[in-house]
Amino acid sequence: MATLQDIAEKLGISKGTVSKALNGAPDISETSRKIILETAVEMGYTKLHRQKDVPKKLCVLIENIEYEEPHHFGYDLIMGFRQLAEPAGYQVDVLPFTEKLQKLTPYDIFMLEHDYVGSFVLGFSLSDPWMKDFQTSRTPAVLYDNYIQSNPNTTYIGIDNNEGMELAVEHLKNLGHKKIGYLSGALGAYIMQVRHRAFFHALRQNGLKSDPTYAGSSYYISECMQKHLPRLLNLGVTGLICSHDQIANAAIVQCQQLELHVPKDISIIGFDDLPISAYTSPPMTTVRQERAELGKCAYYALDSLLNKVSIGTMLLHAQLIVRNSTGPLVSET
Amino acid sequence: MATLQDIAEKLGISKGTVSKALNGAPDISETSRKIILETAVEMGYTKLHRQKDVPKKLCVLIENIEYEEPHHFGYDLIMGFRQLAEPAGYQVDVLPFTEKLQKLTPYDIFMLEHDYVGSFVLGFSLSDPWMKDFQTSRTPAVLYDNYIQSNPNTTYIGIDNNEGMELAVEHLKNLGHKKIGYLSGALGAYIMQVRHRAFFHALRQNGLKSDPTYAGSSYYISECMQKHLPRLLNLGVTGLICSHDQIANAAIVQCQQLELHVPKDISIIGFDDLPISAYTSPPMTTVRQERAELGKCAYYALDSLLNKVSIGTMLLHAQLIVRNSTGPLVSET
Repeated sequence: MATLQDIAEKLGISKGTVSKALNGAPDISETSRKIILETAVEMGYTKLHRQKDVPKKLCVLIENIEYEEPHHFGYDLIMGFRQLAEPAGYQVDVLPFTEKLQKLTPYDIFMLEHDYVGSFVLGFSLSDPWMKDFQTSRTPAVLYDNYIQSNPNTTYIGIDNNEGMELAVEHLKNLGHKKIGYLSGALGAYIMQVRHRAFFHALRQNGLKSDPTYAGSSYYISECMQKHLPRLLNLGVTGLICSHDQIANAAIVQCQQLELHVPKDISIIGFDDLPISAYTSPPMTTVRQERAELGKCAYYALDSLLNKVSIGTMLLHAQLIVRNSTGPLVSET
Repeated sequence: MATLQDIAEKLGISKGTVSKALNGAPDISETSRKIILETAVEMGYTKLHRQKDVPKKLCVLIENIEYEEPHHFGYDLIMGFRQLAEPAGYQVDVLPFTEKLQKLTPYDIFMLEHDYVGSFVLGFSLSDPWMKDFQTSRTPAVLYDNYIQSNPNTTYIGIDNNEGMELAVEHLKNLGHKKIGYLSGALGAYIMQVRHRAFFHALRQNGLKSDPTYAGSSYYISECMQKHLPRLLNLGVTGLICSHDQIANAAIVQCQQLELHVPKDISIIGFDDLPISAYTSPPMTTVRQERAELGKCAYYALDSLLNKVSIGTMLLHAQLIVRNSTGPLVSET
């Protein structure tokens, strides 16, 4: 591991100047500081083993996910992470992030500049600028629902979506449904691509026909409802799996407006088990993401990366929560 | 969690008898002991939270894998596991296992009978009797290279074989190879099925034709060499990936006997990076399994299961170790 002295020698400057730059002293010019930071990152310098008395800092980088209140999706994820990280002596900062902020500074530089030794990354889409940085970054990053191939400093955590989708399809099949449709959010997110593939894989695993016309995806829930849902109903779909509880909830409401009974006419399954999903009408059958456990997994993974055990993927078992939005096929006469 | 008292009440016997049975006292008949153990397992009784002063016991259940000496495949796996488990206060017993032993006692009963609170399972094939037990077992089990769907008390650990296979195919493609073949051990093992699928997936990811005739598998390495290798060579294969280093080593030797030069005439890649693979002639390009790190992962996973964080899958990043058994395609004239 590079030391301050190594960096100083490489740049032909004093160790004191390097130290000042890395600690944000005001008497170092912005240009010098930038060069020193970049060189430090390049040489693999880390603050992980320095300053024994100062708590080490981790950050949660969060985008597109609400987290401030208990009913928000991100709340338990962060709480589970904190529950293990803080007793282990880490300070955890939660940083709401945007594409714009990512464009200002490369990931590794940002982390070194702010003394963060590792991050838990939530809600980034494939088009986020730092998703490119993560392909070669050196500072440990655990990404929720995003997979980076071949960078030993990153871990993908999430639930096992294949397992979840198989549980959902199997449940519908056991209820007698054979024509099963799928409504999904936009496929610009890694996790939406994974669930989309998992849906067709689960159909095949259950001996059902896998036909791409039985799926529809859109960024806008309204478009899913107005364009794809009527099309799937026309195809004779009696079971419907949705990539998110919000879509499933919209589909329940929309079907009811079309005077279809849920679940007598159509069974609907969501994904996530958001807190509200127990209170939809009817209460929703859904694949649960144990968010507090996922937060704990994120800490396990980050701790491993910091200890140079390079976990690439860590998936929680999926669980199907059966409520009243699914029921036996009432065969048409 | 069930207590001794609960078990006693359920069976209408004294708490003392239950305690004696669970601790293997000689004055309890074999029949009574069996009923008490089965009831305890059924009621979810565990010794995890009892006996504060006695070290808790974990076991490594190992079959078909050598582990006694440093050059054996299992040695580092077990060492990595011990390196974390023992300082955390666990006693670790290594138990060589056979199908016959598995048939004698169900997994949960065996574990309770011998005071084991969790296991690390190595080398089991899909036909092993306990593979069925693991579908519903209650005692935490971390399985190396075996995946159990939907049992929250099991974790699959291994390397990311998709990543490894993509690195291997990409490496050959970058060297100019377009006709790439695959030789595999018998597909009766889960991990062989995974790598087999990963091979064809990696071809497609790299824009190469995915044709099942370019793969051959057999339980016997000799059959791979005599039946499949000549067939692949006749198809004009110039790059060959093998599911194991042993097959790759046999292929190198066999090709040389056929007066083919490795890598000028054919490039060969193994899987595992066994200690010997650096000393084959030529030294072998191979996908490394970091065995000590896998052992550590197994402990992380088992610790999580014991803490009711139900990790289903934990995969290490794969690494391609490039040595001299692969080289640029020398185009035929």
